Amino acid sequence: MEAVYYSQNPRFYVAVDCIIFCFEDGVLKVLLQQRDFEPFRGEHTLMGGFVQENEDVTQAAQRILEERTGILYVPLEQVGAFGSPNRDPGARVVSIAYMALVDKHLCNDSLNAKHNGFWVNVYDLPSLSFGHDEMVHKALARLRIQIGKTPVGFQLLPPMFTLSQLQHIHEAILNEHIDKRNFRKRVADMSYIEKTDKIDKTTSKRGAALYRYNQLEYEKSLKAKL
Amino acid sequence: MEAVYYSQNPRFYVAVDCIIFCFEDGVLKVLLQQRDFEPFRGEHTLMGGFVQENEDVTQAAQRILEERTGILYVPLEQVGAFGSPNRDPGARVVSIAYMALVDKHLCNDSLNAKHNGFWVNVYDLPSLSFGHDEMVHKALARLRIQIGKTPVGFQLLPPMFTLSQLQHIHEAILNEHIDKRNFRKRVADMSYIEKTDKIDKTTSKRGAALYRYNQLEYEKSLKAKL
Repeated sequence: MEAVYYSQNPRFYVAVDCIIFCFEDGVLKVLLQQRDFEPFRGEHTLMGGFVQENEDVTQAAQRILEERTGILYVPLEQVGAFGSPNRDPGARVVSIAYMALVDKHLCNDSLNAKHNGFWVNVYDLPSLSFGHDEMVHKALARLRIQIGKTPVGFQLLPPMFTLSQLQHIHEAILNEHIDKRNFRKRVADMSYIEKTDKIDKTTSKRGAALYRYNQLEYEKSLKAKL
Repeated sequence: MEAVYYSQNPRFYVAVDCIIFCFEDGVLKVLLQQRDFEPFRGEHTLMGGFVQENEDVTQAAQRILEERTGILYVPLEQVGAFGSPNRDPGARVVSIAYMALVDKHLCNDSLNAKHNGFWVNVYDLPSLSFGHDEMVHKALARLRIQIGKTPVGFQLLPPMFTLSQLQHIHEAILNEHIDKRNFRKRVADMSYIEKTDKIDKTTSKRGAALYRYNQLEYEKSLKAKL
């Protein structure tokens, strides 16, 4: 059928590029790769690859994420399609960018090393090839819009966390200091952040209350808004 | 270079499909097409087409919008990439969906007719081929999230409008009755909806105040939130 219907149209390579975020040392980081292959050998890019036959585009992004970090079952969110004709000197490639937030402790460092992967502060990004900078900036802008409105960042925290830990994630994403009192007021309005009866005593003698994220409460709060 | 670097990977057709919304007779409508060509001749789809060489993906969406409605310079927003291997029986096609809100009065009906175009209530959608139903549902969901948070719908209204007109747009998008008093309270919180000193006397003797949307105020309100 193909020849009959569509053959007058061009075909392009379709790639996926993954913006993989983690939180480490108080900093929001993104996984990059130093290329040891052409084009742009030696330069920096996101982790990416080509969509294969019989593979959904989202499946391709999941495959790349797993190949490079060992991580499965993390939600991947589409950031957008990038399709300018000259974005890749190798050929016409339309790329679909996906973002994921991962727990750094779950990443397989040897897979990472095998692909020349390294983490950098997203606010101190080197120059990236193929317009990957733009993808990172779009993903970051999306994250910054989401934070505060939706439960962003819990994927980066242990199941129980202190409000200071949560605040540090917000600060890392927004790249700015947040007033502690204002932050606690905002959290108090989020019915889906629940205080537990557990105390974290690792950082002070008095300790800090541990909180947890409640997905069901979040869904309820969404319905209440409609 | 192409043969050297990428040739072991498959290439796909890349399409754009446009979810073109308008507001007419109190109803949110979307532009569909009855196909007079294969595959799926006679069935209904969105307006779409293939991305060409030397054409950005977004340019392709703009071209489709202009070809089918005569409308230029309307913002097109990416809804997402749809890339399941079996979505098109004609061949492997990865499609990027875009949405636009247009003023129905600016549409060129003869261009529309030339492409077998017709408008339907988005809440009374016929079955669409190629999974286009999913694209419409995603666009609509996005619109419903945006409304109230961002200035959605002003593209569908004249430059000055009554609060009743604005409420009708919200009701059409949400597909539900909105309490007038609550709606007015919410609008009062939106600094970017400004009362003018003009009165609309077309619907009642007493008349209704005319409002306008102020983009600069909207940008200020965004900054205040950060």
